[in-house]
Amino acid sequence: MTLLDFELAARLAAATLRQARARGVRPLAAAVLDAAGHPLAVLRDEQASFLRPQIATGKARGCLGMGFGGRELARRAQAMPAFFDAINSLTGGEVVPVAGGILLRDDEGRLLGAIGVSGDTSDNDERCALLAIEEVGLRGETGDPQP
Amino acid sequence: MTLLDFELAARLAAATLRQARARGVRPLAAAVLDAAGHPLAVLRDEQASFLRPQIATGKARGCLGMGFGGRELARRAQAMPAFFDAINSLTGGEVVPVAGGILLRDDEGRLLGAIGVSGDTSDNDERCALLAIEEVGLRGETGDPQP
Amino acid sequence: MTLLDFELAARLAAATLRQARARGVRPLAAAVLDAAGHPLAVLRDEQASFLRPQIATGKARGCLGMGFGGRELARRAQAMPAFFDAINSLTGGEVVPVAGGILLRDDEGRLLGAIGVSGDTSDNDERCALLAIEEVGLRGETGDPQP
Amino acid sequence: MTLLDFELAARLAAATLRQARARGVRPLAAAVLDAAGHPLAVLRDEQASFLRPQIATGKARGCLGMGFGGRELARRAQAMPAFFDAINSLTGGEVVPVAGGILLRDDEGRLLGAIGVSGDTSDNDERCALLAIEEVGLRGETGDPQP
Repeated sequence: MTLLDFELAARLAAATLRQARARGVRPLAAAVLDAAGHPLAVLRDEQASFLRPQIATGKARGCLGMGFGGRELARRAQAMPAFFDAINSLTGGEVVPVAGGILLRDDEGRLLGAIGVSGDTSDNDERCALLAIEEVGLRGETGDPQP
Repeated sequence: MTLLDFELAARLAAATLRQARARGVRPLAAAVLDAAGHPLAVLRDEQASFLRPQIATGKARGCLGMGFGGRELARRAQAMPAFFDAINSLTGGEVVPVAGGILLRDDEGRLLGAIGVSGDTSDNDERCALLAIEEVGLRGETGDPQP
Repeated sequence: MTLLDFELAARLAAATLRQARARGVRPLAAAVLDAAGHPLAVLRDEQASFLRPQIATGKARGCLGMGFGGRELARRAQAMPAFFDAINSLTGGEVVPVAGGILLRDDEGRLLGAIGVSGDTSDNDERCALLAIEEVGLRGETGDPQP
Repeated sequence: MTLLDFELAARLAAATLRQARARGVRPLAAAVLDAAGHPLAVLRDEQASFLRPQIATGKARGCLGMGFGGRELARRAQAMPAFFDAINSLTGGEVVPVAGGILLRDDEGRLLGAIGVSGDTSDNDERCALLAIEEVGLRGETGDPQP
């Protein structure tokens, strides 16, 4: 059984930021939260703009608070705008319903936490996170049907 | 005349969570509020994601604050988005206008309070609550015309 | 290893409210949170005033967020008022540093969550919770040296 | 000229958490901010209680926002409570005026940012940070006269 401790969380967040640098993606922030939504590692590339850590945290926290990956949250926000407006106000914007929020699971499918990434397009944010998740040996759930 | 005391409220909330487990519905939170909108019993299945109690409370509170079941609130939110945007800001998101918020009445139609449920689709949330309401001998008003 | 599920949390909260009734203490609210600070069971005696659930939740949440029982939080708040003013603002009042917040542990000392109680004096709030904790077979940590 | 990039910030925060583990100090959170007060690396030991990252961030942010180490802020908060009450409200608690907030400088005395630490007593928080600052080759300013 994998433990998502602060060392692994920090490695995952750093790997995400380095993926962005290696691929010419805009500088990122990445937030890795435990399964209860509390931060383990929040990193911001020193070139990334300063709201990125909060947005990254909101992407991850929304996934955990609602129980879905960011792409599923995005679909629901589009289908039920009044519901997501209310959630937005209830939580002070803690739920950021877009791609780039990814649930983290171990090999046996157990929920370990989530990562949220912000800085470039949501697609690029997500891609960097998925590459980093693979690097550290975890499984990510983006909210799209698994291939 | 039925009294919605904390014992009955707790039984109703627990019965709702158990209905979800018995039917393979995703884990739920349920909030039972008195007619003044104040909580009597808020329960969260330990497997349910952590924003569910707030959402459940918002569903119930919206029904009581506006005087309609959740389905009528949902219809109005769709017809009058600017009105519900204002309500949303006024109340800090306390009105969650979707199915799964149900007014509670006794046999003589007296308003006792409301229950809000969150965790699965709104339809499933509502179904579990209605079964639990029947179990404890109350009547629920979903905001749809009574059959 | 004990699991603090919603059934046990609801039994603990209800036992606390019944202790108050049996002892002529003022009507209470009790909040049982998991170890990460998320609610499992919040009950309010229908005779208790309406801010009690929020206060009870803040007592429990403060214990978990800071890692001490309520009596230790109270001592620290008295010794370091500027620090607790800042925490108060940072958390929107989520840390209520008085007696009546109790960490919950199992037989082996593992942290399961916390209970917060509000409605009468802090001493009476705490006493009712401790009796209920014993009833359900858990161990409570009030923030005072263990006898 | 030293650059406080995210890699160095993450190393400093991780070194602080490891110092606590090596010394039997309670589990910590550490926040490293750039000179503008924006986060570069926030880490929480997975055993630390969940308010610690916010408190750590407030310690570091207060130092940068006011231009003093945490010990000087603590002295001023004690001497001028009404002033710090106002700051507290103005900033939503972002200034946590206690030891454990440390300005970070390079060899030439240039301000690079700050670290804030929370989890044990303020003295222990600060000690772990100072050891980690030395490890990574920076200079720390605690708000006490330099020896």
